[in-house]
Amino acid sequence: MTATFSGPRLSRLRVPARDELTPSARRLADTTEKAEGYVPNWIEAFALGGENTNRLNAYLFPLLEGAADSPGDLTGREREILATIVSVTNGCSYCHALHVDTLGKVLEDHWLAHRIGLHHAEVAELSDRERLLADLALTLTHTPGEISDDRIEALRAVGLSDEDIFEAVQVISIINATNRITLALGVLPDEQIFANR
Amino acid sequence: MTATFSGPRLSRLRVPARDELTPSARRLADTTEKAEGYVPNWIEAFALGGENTNRLNAYLFPLLEGAADSPGDLTGREREILATIVSVTNGCSYCHALHVDTLGKVLEDHWLAHRIGLHHAEVAELSDRERLLADLALTLTHTPGEISDDRIEALRAVGLSDEDIFEAVQVISIINATNRITLALGVLPDEQIFANR
Repeated sequence: MTATFSGPRLSRLRVPARDELTPSARRLADTTEKAEGYVPNWIEAFALGGENTNRLNAYLFPLLEGAADSPGDLTGREREILATIVSVTNGCSYCHALHVDTLGKVLEDHWLAHRIGLHHAEVAELSDRERLLADLALTLTHTPGEISDDRIEALRAVGLSDEDIFEAVQVISIINATNRITLALGVLPDEQIFANR
Repeated sequence: MTATFSGPRLSRLRVPARDELTPSARRLADTTEKAEGYVPNWIEAFALGGENTNRLNAYLFPLLEGAADSPGDLTGREREILATIVSVTNGCSYCHALHVDTLGKVLEDHWLAHRIGLHHAEVAELSDRERLLADLALTLTHTPGEISDDRIEALRAVGLSDEDIFEAVQVISIINATNRITLALGVLPDEQIFANR
């Protein structure tokens, strides 16, 4: 443990000072602080990756937020359901708190977001399509070798195009990556999220 | 299953024709074909993601190949050892074949590459630093919640900076993502790899 931290520790690794940040990382910190009222701990902790982290974010954000140039057409609700279920499944406390909170905002219902994260199979409010996507998230996280032609056919049968399915696969997979990065660093959950729920 | 494929199927999802590719995807296919003599199946299969895939590659390649603007300083051998061990561990046949082959080229020793992929703990040729990085790859793939302060301290003790450790964590994590994408699509291993080994 380094002596950098006072109070609960933000990350197992060194946390760069604000004036060390790349221009793009500083922009992200500033915009997020303006929008949310604070800089989430993951942004401070991940800044150690410099341009690599900027490239991660350039891939991650369009997948989570949707992008005009993306061939797939998942809803914002679907993207965040996937991110939430993967994060809870991987036992990433930081990601769990963050994605349940974001899903709560997307749904305008934090209680529903918690229920989806904790056990989506029991949530009657999900559509068939959402439930199949959520099932895909679990399988692809725990036992990725078990994805079969039948699973893909079932997703097509509820109206998803191959481009939509690929986008869901990418969302699930990159959250599996960000969960691992966050767990490796032991990023401290943002107290701002818990303070208001 | 669609009727797009004759012979062994390249992917579970639709494979875009060459003239559908984004300029950046076409450039990647062309450069790789020139360098390797063929277009690897993953490039054809992942092209369904359009600009999302281009953004994935923009994050992935600098992590695997090293980049001047990266704060970490892992060797090419270390990066590819990590990618190989994660791919074998996740049971991704395509990624297993591809990364063992690439590691074999980096080491100029395909036999050593196979031994590292299959059971690195028994490989005396690894340095302590490489062995600890390889152990990190296994833990962060299977049980990411078990990374501890002690594990990080042990990595520092063999000379890795916090930036190096973070880079290793990013390599391990993104390969966990690409393994899952590849398994979801069931990408057919490239026969060109197996033909020559």
